[in-house]
Amino acid sequence: MRDVIIIGGGAAGLAAAVYAQEKQIDYLLVAPALGGKTVPATWGDGIGATLAQLFAGRLAMAPHQLLADRALAVTCVDGGFTVQTEGHGPQQALAVLVATGVQAVQMPVFDGIAPLRYNLGYSAATHAQRMANKHVAVIGDTLRSLRGVHELAAVARRVFFVVQSAAALASPLGIAVQDYLNVELLDGYHVTGVEQAPGTVVVQITRGSTVQQLVVDAVFADLGLRPDSALVRSLVQTDLNGFIPVDETGATAQPGLFAAGDVTTAFAEQVLVAAGQGARAAQSAYQYVLAHPSLRALKGANYD
Amino acid sequence: MRDVIIIGGGAAGLAAAVYAQEKQIDYLLVAPALGGKTVPATWGDGIGATLAQLFAGRLAMAPHQLLADRALAVTCVDGGFTVQTEGHGPQQALAVLVATGVQAVQMPVFDGIAPLRYNLGYSAATHAQRMANKHVAVIGDTLRSLRGVHELAAVARRVFFVVQSAAALASPLGIAVQDYLNVELLDGYHVTGVEQAPGTVVVQITRGSTVQQLVVDAVFADLGLRPDSALVRSLVQTDLNGFIPVDETGATAQPGLFAAGDVTTAFAEQVLVAAGQGARAAQSAYQYVLAHPSLRALKGANYD
Repeated sequence: MRDVIIIGGGAAGLAAAVYAQEKQIDYLLVAPALGGKTVPATWGDGIGATLAQLFAGRLAMAPHQLLADRALAVTCVDGGFTVQTEGHGPQQALAVLVATGVQAVQMPVFDGIAPLRYNLGYSAATHAQRMANKHVAVIGDTLRSLRGVHELAAVARRVFFVVQSAAALASPLGIAVQDYLNVELLDGYHVTGVEQAPGTVVVQITRGSTVQQLVVDAVFADLGLRPDSALVRSLVQTDLNGFIPVDETGATAQPGLFAAGDVTTAFAEQVLVAAGQGARAAQSAYQYVLAHPSLRALKGANYD
Repeated sequence: MRDVIIIGGGAAGLAAAVYAQEKQIDYLLVAPALGGKTVPATWGDGIGATLAQLFAGRLAMAPHQLLADRALAVTCVDGGFTVQTEGHGPQQALAVLVATGVQAVQMPVFDGIAPLRYNLGYSAATHAQRMANKHVAVIGDTLRSLRGVHELAAVARRVFFVVQSAAALASPLGIAVQDYLNVELLDGYHVTGVEQAPGTVVVQITRGSTVQQLVVDAVFADLGLRPDSALVRSLVQTDLNGFIPVDETGATAQPGLFAAGDVTTAFAEQVLVAAGQGARAAQSAYQYVLAHPSLRALKGANYD
């Protein structure tokens, strides 16, 4: 039985494993691929991609502690946990750290369109700094889309904000967004088509019989996020949106089960933040393994 | 007036500035030197030193946003803050992010001894992984020293734990530590001398008329930590030990004032964790600057 199994190859999982490697903890990192959501950004120069490469390089030095596989379920066993994997059967550890991240709800009209140089995506805030003096459309009525509009408004020339529900605009961020001179609100509109043309994206929006075409440099949609928390839903109560509640150390309500990064309620969608949460949760898991009295018998050396 | 002044050149401050640079926020990083507590570790190969170098390299690309100086005090001015610096007068910003870190209380008997290869220091946990199969002494009765003993006990051959007060041993971690076969408790002893000999450290401990010599590979002391929070004590109420209380986003009770890293109550003494907190607090400060209505008049472009 290992000390800790870390599930997920994004920033949080990689940082947790790097911490575990530095502390010489007996860890196993289970992930289909290393890099998480930062992988598509490796052709960029962001600190996220650099960090993911740095972490992955460190972990590659201990290949026997990496399992390129998908974790399907986590269950309790006597004094520890079993992680069921797709291709490598059950794996056991005293503690488990879940860092499976989050997926954006896909926008059907984006289907079949390959993004070119950040011109189509699900995270306005991540790419806001690349939108200086550009025309951008944001689709959505979540808090996250409002934050994206704020960040874009500070740098972009013009932001078209396609809001399906007026309720989003009644929030403090929603009210504040209406004061920007360079933000055009298009409320009640639905997106009925997206097409790429050379150098631009054309977004077709419809309200009743009115159809408009927005010709922009980039379009970002936010229909919500789905955390990949299904594998631990029998062990912990997630919040209404499926995020795993954690305390400030990354501990869940289930002793021995830790979580970090965007799958948790501490969600921040920032590589550096997720990495810090991963390391913090790994530290927390390590202290759990070291100090939990009932686990001592399962460990060997240096205990009586 | 700038968007945000970041104070402190450790992991939290560097990561906050890297976030600000990626977001093209108008920031100023005020620090006497870049690297914080990771600087002495640059001759090591830890991820902390690597990360600090990576961050410092990014920030060096924008040298006009670095101020090699010491911040003395932070005060409120109309709609923002003034940071008084030692050599460059007052600097102003809409928001301030404090990442000034923490200093270990010095052990008088360590005076004049230059540490060699991690053989003398104030953080057992940081160097625990280098102590495999070694003899180590830990001096102190803090929770932090107990955690250090736990980490050391898992890897070291023998740990001498010199505890001045028996109260520390009544805590759950204190009780658990007594079950290790390789930990020798020396309670009620005081350290009366430390000497380096070739390859070893000799720690002289005294209880009443009993004097013992511990010949070890390394000695770690923990007489407590002092956060460098004096510069904001007129703006926020610190906890009893001087740490700045922050919420999970790095916000303090003072609007516009943020804090991150080991100067806060979220203290973790881990470079990756501090970096994550720095980025999170910078994100939080950015959202404050973007969304706070009374600040808009102070910003220029894109607002009405």
